[in-house]
Amino acid sequence: MMNGTDRKMEKASDKVFFSSYASVNIHENMVRDESRTQAYRKAIMQCSDLIKDKVVVDIGCGTGILSCFCAKAGAKRVYAIDASSIIEQAKLVVKENHLEGVVQLISGKAETVDLPEKADILVSEWMGHFLLFEGMLNSVVVARDRFLKKGGLILPSKCTLFVAPMDCKRMYDRRITFWSSTKKTYDLSMECMIPFAKKNLLNSVRREDIPSDTVMDPGQPFYDLDINTVTIEDLNRVEGSFQMTCDRTTNLTGIAVWFDAYFEAPSKDTVVLSTSPFSPRTHWNQAVLYREEGLPVQKGDVIKGSMTITPADRNERHLDVKLSYQVGDGQPEEKIYNTWQTPGPVEMY
Amino acid sequence: MMNGTDRKMEKASDKVFFSSYASVNIHENMVRDESRTQAYRKAIMQCSDLIKDKVVVDIGCGTGILSCFCAKAGAKRVYAIDASSIIEQAKLVVKENHLEGVVQLISGKAETVDLPEKADILVSEWMGHFLLFEGMLNSVVVARDRFLKKGGLILPSKCTLFVAPMDCKRMYDRRITFWSSTKKTYDLSMECMIPFAKKNLLNSVRREDIPSDTVMDPGQPFYDLDINTVTIEDLNRVEGSFQMTCDRTTNLTGIAVWFDAYFEAPSKDTVVLSTSPFSPRTHWNQAVLYREEGLPVQKGDVIKGSMTITPADRNERHLDVKLSYQVGDGQPEEKIYNTWQTPGPVEMY
Repeated sequence: MMNGTDRKMEKASDKVFFSSYASVNIHENMVRDESRTQAYRKAIMQCSDLIKDKVVVDIGCGTGILSCFCAKAGAKRVYAIDASSIIEQAKLVVKENHLEGVVQLISGKAETVDLPEKADILVSEWMGHFLLFEGMLNSVVVARDRFLKKGGLILPSKCTLFVAPMDCKRMYDRRITFWSSTKKTYDLSMECMIPFAKKNLLNSVRREDIPSDTVMDPGQPFYDLDINTVTIEDLNRVEGSFQMTCDRTTNLTGIAVWFDAYFEAPSKDTVVLSTSPFSPRTHWNQAVLYREEGLPVQKGDVIKGSMTITPADRNERHLDVKLSYQVGDGQPEEKIYNTWQTPGPVEMY
Repeated sequence: MMNGTDRKMEKASDKVFFSSYASVNIHENMVRDESRTQAYRKAIMQCSDLIKDKVVVDIGCGTGILSCFCAKAGAKRVYAIDASSIIEQAKLVVKENHLEGVVQLISGKAETVDLPEKADILVSEWMGHFLLFEGMLNSVVVARDRFLKKGGLILPSKCTLFVAPMDCKRMYDRRITFWSSTKKTYDLSMECMIPFAKKNLLNSVRREDIPSDTVMDPGQPFYDLDINTVTIEDLNRVEGSFQMTCDRTTNLTGIAVWFDAYFEAPSKDTVVLSTSPFSPRTHWNQAVLYREEGLPVQKGDVIKGSMTITPADRNERHLDVKLSYQVGDGQPEEKIYNTWQTPGPVEMY
């Protein structure tokens, strides 16, 4: 339970969160991301028979682009909700596309605003880095329970988190062995910075663009999130197990994590939005959980393990990530990573 | 004068400022910047006859690298002051280089800590983006008046701010005309975002890596900052005038701003640390003040103007920048830019 101080911090983090969406850059970055925006557009447009004459709610509408797609797909009414001042821009986008008869902008939080009617469809682009970082999913779950008719369509409907073992010594060294180079460059020894840099690198979920050749397994799902049924309580502890196989003999230096989002709808092909290192780059990048020391692995070695993701104690928009695994019958390893130093939305271009 | 609320905001901004220096990334970024670190090293080492057996104070010592340079140059004592927890790392760096007999680490703010003796030399790497962004110079000035003997040596001793006219339509268009492209990409018109994107681009000091071919003048100094004599009062209003000449016939689309820092010492060659677009890249980048519309200029046209930089009302670590100029006998133009959306220290590598 939160005490007074925590509640104040929570409010402060909300303020930072919503005001970060008031500037144009973050929206440019999202709209520019064609993997993201085309997946939503395709999913919405192919559902036009399901959307036609129906009521849609868009949670965290930003510039209103998804609401406009839904209106163009034939919705009778779209309620577009956002707590950031970007909603003033969304009003203009709606008007520019002559959709003001359909899209109704609502300034406020999904937790507190009221709608005059229930929605048949809920659309939202709530996914953060590491899927759950930024904690916007909680608002979507609340909105679903408050606004969506029973059995209504949710886009996307499902997300899956993936892991893969990594051979990423180059990436690791870049941040660590740098501190051995100052002896030569500046005639000053700074190797004592290495444990500090390691502590930073090894305790944090690191946001990285992972070169696909560092990934030793195509990616194994360890958690399926069903947005139709997930509860706030479920999100207090996201947990799954995995089994990965190494495709080469090398040292295991990290674990990659990414997500795919699925837009499922009755009698439609599922649209997949993938943020995998094997897919075109998105603004979400991927995450790396680095190991302190490389662990020798053989081609064909099986790594079994589990991951548990919980909201950080002091700020619910941050996460603690507990990773446990063992290679074959080897020593079990366990480590906790946090997102305190993980950058939020970054500019892609 | 600050009221209660302002004082609280000031403290909050201090907290963000100092805690941003607690992580390894920002220090890696600075130490990796060889233009920066080699300039300090060269300036310090060539002054070894002036530093030998003398007392040095290092303001905002970070990892302690500059303090160690001074110790290696022969200082009797170096007081290394920093309010960030990075000072714990500085202690280790000092020890690793067997300089703990010389360098004394002091945790706290330059405004409030006490030294047992006056210093002969003050060294500090206080420069921010746009030279003055981040507002650390005030602390250096206070430290100078509190700790430095009259006539003591300051490294760097002088900084100069430069301007140059730019032909940067490409850079401008990239952020603006994007919003015309969504009609084709997503079949959705978003041109109403253009004024919003313009407002963002045109009211802010923009941090950019300026391609040298967009710069139409080698750079004209408009403000010389003498760190030996500048006062806090002076920094409440930094002001200068300039005269630039266009080297081509094109449209004027922005004004570039950068700084050079000079390490002057008696009977020594001045070491110059340049952050110009014509010099090797540094972690400071350059700044662009964009124009709303391109203004036709002819090769040889003279642009006369002035710039005034003042601390922003609501947060003293931010700046308001007033730019006034006219091409030849043309219409005088005036515009105010702020740093609210200017990123602070960014990772270089």
